[in-house]
Amino acid sequence: MKIALAQQNYHIGNFTANTNKIISAIEEARKQGADLVVFSELSICGYPPRDFLEFDDFINQCNASIDLIRAHTRDIGVIIGAPVRNPVKEGKDLFNGAWLLYQGEIKGIAHKTCLPTYDVFDEYRYFEPAWEWNVLEFKGRRIALTICEDIWALSENPLYRISPMEQLIGQHPDIMINISASPFDYDHDEDRKEVVRANVLKYHLPMVYCNCVGSQTEIVFDGGSLIYNATGELIREAKYFEEDFMLVDLDASATVTGAGDTERRQLDKDMRVSKISDPEKIISYLTAENNIRQIYAALVLGIRDYFSKMGFTKAILGSSGGIDSAVTLAIACDALGAENVRAILMPSQFSTSHSVDDAVQLSKNLGNPYDIIPIKPVFDAFMDSLKPVFGDLPFSVAEENIQSRTRGNLVMAIANKFGYILLNTSNKSELATGYGTLYGDMAGGLSVLGDVYKMQVFALARFINRDKEIIPENIITKPPSAELRPGQKDSDSLPEYELLDKVLYQYIERRQGPQDLISMGIEEALVNRVLKLVNSNEYKRNQFCPIIRVSSKAFGVGRRMPIVGKYLS
Amino acid sequence: MKIALAQQNYHIGNFTANTNKIISAIEEARKQGADLVVFSELSICGYPPRDFLEFDDFINQCNASIDLIRAHTRDIGVIIGAPVRNPVKEGKDLFNGAWLLYQGEIKGIAHKTCLPTYDVFDEYRYFEPAWEWNVLEFKGRRIALTICEDIWALSENPLYRISPMEQLIGQHPDIMINISASPFDYDHDEDRKEVVRANVLKYHLPMVYCNCVGSQTEIVFDGGSLIYNATGELIREAKYFEEDFMLVDLDASATVTGAGDTERRQLDKDMRVSKISDPEKIISYLTAENNIRQIYAALVLGIRDYFSKMGFTKAILGSSGGIDSAVTLAIACDALGAENVRAILMPSQFSTSHSVDDAVQLSKNLGNPYDIIPIKPVFDAFMDSLKPVFGDLPFSVAEENIQSRTRGNLVMAIANKFGYILLNTSNKSELATGYGTLYGDMAGGLSVLGDVYKMQVFALARFINRDKEIIPENIITKPPSAELRPGQKDSDSLPEYELLDKVLYQYIERRQGPQDLISMGIEEALVNRVLKLVNSNEYKRNQFCPIIRVSSKAFGVGRRMPIVGKYLS
Repeated sequence: MKIALAQQNYHIGNFTANTNKIISAIEEARKQGADLVVFSELSICGYPPRDFLEFDDFINQCNASIDLIRAHTRDIGVIIGAPVRNPVKEGKDLFNGAWLLYQGEIKGIAHKTCLPTYDVFDEYRYFEPAWEWNVLEFKGRRIALTICEDIWALSENPLYRISPMEQLIGQHPDIMINISASPFDYDHDEDRKEVVRANVLKYHLPMVYCNCVGSQTEIVFDGGSLIYNATGELIREAKYFEEDFMLVDLDASATVTGAGDTERRQLDKDMRVSKISDPEKIISYLTAENNIRQIYAALVLGIRDYFSKMGFTKAILGSSGGIDSAVTLAIACDALGAENVRAILMPSQFSTSHSVDDAVQLSKNLGNPYDIIPIKPVFDAFMDSLKPVFGDLPFSVAEENIQSRTRGNLVMAIANKFGYILLNTSNKSELATGYGTLYGDMAGGLSVLGDVYKMQVFALARFINRDKEIIPENIITKPPSAELRPGQKDSDSLPEYELLDKVLYQYIERRQGPQDLISMGIEEALVNRVLKLVNSNEYKRNQFCPIIRVSSKAFGVGRRMPIVGKYLS
Repeated sequence: MKIALAQQNYHIGNFTANTNKIISAIEEARKQGADLVVFSELSICGYPPRDFLEFDDFINQCNASIDLIRAHTRDIGVIIGAPVRNPVKEGKDLFNGAWLLYQGEIKGIAHKTCLPTYDVFDEYRYFEPAWEWNVLEFKGRRIALTICEDIWALSENPLYRISPMEQLIGQHPDIMINISASPFDYDHDEDRKEVVRANVLKYHLPMVYCNCVGSQTEIVFDGGSLIYNATGELIREAKYFEEDFMLVDLDASATVTGAGDTERRQLDKDMRVSKISDPEKIISYLTAENNIRQIYAALVLGIRDYFSKMGFTKAILGSSGGIDSAVTLAIACDALGAENVRAILMPSQFSTSHSVDDAVQLSKNLGNPYDIIPIKPVFDAFMDSLKPVFGDLPFSVAEENIQSRTRGNLVMAIANKFGYILLNTSNKSELATGYGTLYGDMAGGLSVLGDVYKMQVFALARFINRDKEIIPENIITKPPSAELRPGQKDSDSLPEYELLDKVLYQYIERRQGPQDLISMGIEEALVNRVLKLVNSNEYKRNQFCPIIRVSSKAFGVGRRMPIVGKYLS
């Protein structure tokens, strides 16, 4: 049997675009002689549709798309993802379904059993878990059809009490097909391969694993669909960060031998927290070239898809001569074209001349347009207006924030006037510690580096400069500074980034508590200071724009903390 | 048996404060001769603890609090809410538990079965549902102990496939005890009474129903704990929006008769969407005096608890002479004391003289401090600085936004200088349609009116003026305007609020689609225009501050929409 796999980039709720894309792939699969073509999870409506699923009208539109697609399946099977109305009154009103369409009919539907409800996932918010399991017959083959998370519960410490493959295996399937919407983080591709292979080795069946690709606001799907034969050999691996189309003849490649499952390691719950526990290895792990290269690709796709799906073409950002804005600018130019990214240099009275020179040189290297607008006149006007209220009180964080917000205002004004979208340049270490000004440098429509620690920003800069100097060396080597008061340096307010990022990674990605951190040899006062900074600045992050997610635990929708909480704060 | 019920206001993660408060109530119950004292759901750590639950350290602290409290139970039983570690490897690592403590020991734990995972609730994110059910014995009584949502699945259209009371009733309990964290919305108190009573009538058992009180960032818990005897008579009802303590002798009040369940109506799934479907009745429902009075009380508590739990005392806001800021100011003065609320009047060149006069009169009536800072000098400085970029382009929305952001900047500067928290004054109708400026009038730490439609804001103003004129009549009667260009009125950009709010309520609270709205007699062009405004402005609301929730569907954590989505937009 010839199976085609279509790894596609969908737009949530854009039924016309998604349906047309799906029908095109069906035509292509037919042309190439496929018996069956497989699409990813909830491909009909895009993943994650979130609360759109609560609208009856939205489900009706999903069903209308299924009807349109069905008409194209007279001589080819299609496996596709769409919500399914629950026919009984008990339980939630929907299932997350994998539909088998053929001969213009719905031949069968598998419901998802394991509903991820952690991190960025909210599936139990919408869906009832499956309570019955049936192998689907197609052209004499018996398909064990599952959806994404369904195949992830195979460790000795599973997140779910029921494993659908354990239910299906007794019905003697010939093949496993899994349709997924499995997002990127910088070592998730390895986890994914391991999980798919572990299933193949456990059940001695070939597996067709179809993932989607593309970015949906903050969540990047990296593709990398997989086809394994029954012996655990990887037959085909789709492209990462791009659409792809693959065709395999399973009869030619599926040779069952007595492979064991000895290589299977502890998965499941452990996979949901990052795995690097040795504090000495954290920075080298975070900045490893393989991770940085993937992060770069994810950020480019994240920017590009945000703009194309929102209908925007042009970006703007504040370019300070510092490393965060330099890296953001370089990535944005790659994603959107340098001519579509406008840099605004807004020196203050405390900016060094180097800052402007470096930022100018950066834009010359990249070839993007830039303007220089000093902020002192507006800052002075603010201070004059506030004189009756401020009196003779000394310069404080209020004046620093006025400068930062003046910049935010200037760049938003140009954005509003000409239709640019403001890219935010804050990094994860700053967001974690609240080292930023609301409505100032925290302004923006999309955060490029908000899930990238400062040490990783340095590594990204080196990666960007790998062939030639794009980011001026001085930007990389000078001490980080917000330049909001004379001689200011980040290290006046924060621990050195190498130390800070270690603590943050342990706390944020690995959910280690204060005692764990102290027992790793980190000074107690530092632990308490950093954890208090993280928790007491939740209110700032709560108003922050979407962050392109590249780690296993990004700020934003995947990390939900109380604001009025009084824990470690 | 004498049962005490402690309706308390907890602070999430503040174990010291919560434990002390709980121990005080145990002492009081002992003094009053109670056999048993009942506390609300997750009272140990406060509800909702969100992702704090993912930290082992947090669970350890919960257990340490349980140990402290246990020592106070030698001669009195305590039923209390706290997370419970799941002893088996399968499934999530925690249960949501109701603990029976007595004689210094843990006598039993009931696990929650029905885990609300919709709107503001995320319980399946953290908890495994119960899979076994046991009546707990205490002093010869058999207690059917359940947690909040567990008693809500009794309709013919239940959200859950298993009802724990159906499991427990076969074990012949004598009494039902339910510990809850059931939030306020403006007709939820009636639903709650109906559900509790329906259980009493169905199972012919008395019910002690303990709710918490207090606001946790955006979610207001309104208390109103209930005690019913087995015949369905309400024996005691605790205060709303306040802490309370009640003691009943159940033997004196529990007379079982053959009450039927004929009055039970369709509950469950229907209760999760608002019930007013007749478009003609929506505005009178939204502005009904009973609802407005409750909303007012919830907003006062929401502000007061946000400030006290964050450790703040003083608020600031921009007072424009319009109705939204007037109502916000009046409520804030009630919540925090007029002397702690500073109003900043920031007229533009387009403001009418009435606006300043009205705002001054309002602050005189309330007795709160105020300052007047015209924005023209700063606005002119912005325009001068932007001249090289803007050239001679005509006045547009960019210039309107500069004025709004200048105001946001000025008021934030004063807030930062003196330690005020900025209260946001945007209403739900504006937020729904994106009629506001990011970082300008959308700035603030807490939104007071973000879940209150414009028509309800008018009703709140009338309510505030019920005894004497606090809000000057002119503020209520003049046409709403942002005053950002000459002669501007809201109605230039938006439908009349009476019509707009009807459409918004049907779409937001009732999830009606375009066809439903059109079939209600609303013009198609208007439907499409309003729905597109709502959906295409998700990116703005995504950066908005927490909104005190008063309706069954507020913007914020309880409504999760894709930003890059292309649905009705």
